Amino acid sequence: MTTASATLDLESARLVLAAQPFAALVGTELTEFGDGRATLIVPIRAEIGQQFGYVHGGALSYLADNTLTFAAGTVLGANVLTVGFTITYLRPARGARLRAEAVVTGSPRRQAVVNCEIYAESDDTEAILCAVAQGTTRTVDRNLVG
Amino acid sequence: MTTASATLDLESARLVLAAQPFAALVGTELTEFGDGRATLIVPIRAEIGQQFGYVHGGALSYLADNTLTFAAGTVLGANVLTVGFTITYLRPARGARLRAEAVVTGSPRRQAVVNCEIYAESDDTEAILCAVAQGTTRTVDRNLVG
Amino acid sequence: MTTASATLDLESARLVLAAQPFAALVGTELTEFGDGRATLIVPIRAEIGQQFGYVHGGALSYLADNTLTFAAGTVLGANVLTVGFTITYLRPARGARLRAEAVVTGSPRRQAVVNCEIYAESDDTEAILCAVAQGTTRTVDRNLVG
Amino acid sequence: MTTASATLDLESARLVLAAQPFAALVGTELTEFGDGRATLIVPIRAEIGQQFGYVHGGALSYLADNTLTFAAGTVLGANVLTVGFTITYLRPARGARLRAEAVVTGSPRRQAVVNCEIYAESDDTEAILCAVAQGTTRTVDRNLVG
Repeated sequence: MTTASATLDLESARLVLAAQPFAALVGTELTEFGDGRATLIVPIRAEIGQQFGYVHGGALSYLADNTLTFAAGTVLGANVLTVGFTITYLRPARGARLRAEAVVTGSPRRQAVVNCEIYAESDDTEAILCAVAQGTTRTVDRNLVG
Repeated sequence: MTTASATLDLESARLVLAAQPFAALVGTELTEFGDGRATLIVPIRAEIGQQFGYVHGGALSYLADNTLTFAAGTVLGANVLTVGFTITYLRPARGARLRAEAVVTGSPRRQAVVNCEIYAESDDTEAILCAVAQGTTRTVDRNLVG
Repeated sequence: MTTASATLDLESARLVLAAQPFAALVGTELTEFGDGRATLIVPIRAEIGQQFGYVHGGALSYLADNTLTFAAGTVLGANVLTVGFTITYLRPARGARLRAEAVVTGSPRRQAVVNCEIYAESDDTEAILCAVAQGTTRTVDRNLVG
Repeated sequence: MTTASATLDLESARLVLAAQPFAALVGTELTEFGDGRATLIVPIRAEIGQQFGYVHGGALSYLADNTLTFAAGTVLGANVLTVGFTITYLRPARGARLRAEAVVTGSPRRQAVVNCEIYAESDDTEAILCAVAQGTTRTVDRNLVG
């Protein structure tokens, strides 16, 4: 690549997401990418549920991981690696889709701390905040996004 | 159910896992369940990868969530809800399978704190510790495992 | 007390803080309290340092714990208990004072998830973000703030 | 220093602790240091309490931070920096003293993940597990222990 900004516009970031088989298995779309922010959407379908029909907590944690890593990528560039994150589940998730919004809150050299909120949405009801996460992502020398 | 112990032996816990569509989508087997411990196995295949061929961090976080919830279920019974967890990624995961081992470290009334280690294994190499997690699970009044 | 709002204005919250010997030992002032937000200030002095003259990480973690609990108290009332939190250290802290700002990001029934940012400030320089935390606080039946 | 092991025996580690003013303010003793493990003791006195006479959660979080950093130092050497940690409070702490035990669970290159348990003890009762923590510590180029 020539510059980070050339690589990491929305279209390029969508190519990165499309190259992640697990993101495709879950069913993930990138709708916002830039300026320290990223938004991912996952349609809610039976395959991502647990035994009582709600979205599986592990699907929410996957989504937190993926969204905060993309948000970090908007400020750190493509070669990033998520070090870890914390997720807190607030309410069971059901409805039409999950929307995860991540925002970089601090970015010292080669590192970004990111907050992420996951909402469950339907077309006719208000979005419900289902989980909140906070994670840390760092730049690496090799290509290791995701 | 009549008693928690009747419900939550290995076979019953496998039925709970089998009733979680997302666990099936990822491909998850329960191999140990009891006495504050649970072990889940996920065969590594392309579908759970990220763009460079390693296992997706979100698949590891799903596995941590699921394993620590099952470990908590061995001491709290079937009606449990994971409040949240923290995961730290140590090394990229690849090989034949993931093995997640969770152990309850403390369990005050109606609550369990669980540590989880995730290894990447192959048949001919030593297991590699890829991620470590710590989470909290609580009993709830309704049936909400997972 | 008659109502939560009567109890938990800024002056009442300052009395709660004044009743915490450890907050006094560290040297803590409450400067904002209300509407899901709390701000605590700790003057930086040698006694809260580590061996190289920076503020001790444990003093930052104390401050995160205290600030996020107060922020939760603005929405949950006085009888709250912090379940746990995660803190990430971004930069070494030195200067004139620490300023910790906590904001409730989600508050389902009897529970609040709170984000906290800790800055190191001096009179003549820009504030530096030194640590970020996320925690969960719950209401309890007994008086257990702090 | 010539070797890490020469630097970081129990006596040398006690000198590091003695050089931390905040550890002295709280009142901290190092009783075990080596082979991936460290134990710190804090006598319980009124000054580290909250408003109801229990130990302040922030004092427990300080102790977790300090103990897991020392445990990491047994494997990483003296030049380490704690990146962050998660703490979960299990029960209110009171009694004669706090005992924090930390164990390194994984240590990839230049990094250690450490689990820590904090007990409240008295001379005539069984130790009570009050908090559990998990943190990550990394080596740094400069002298930044603590």
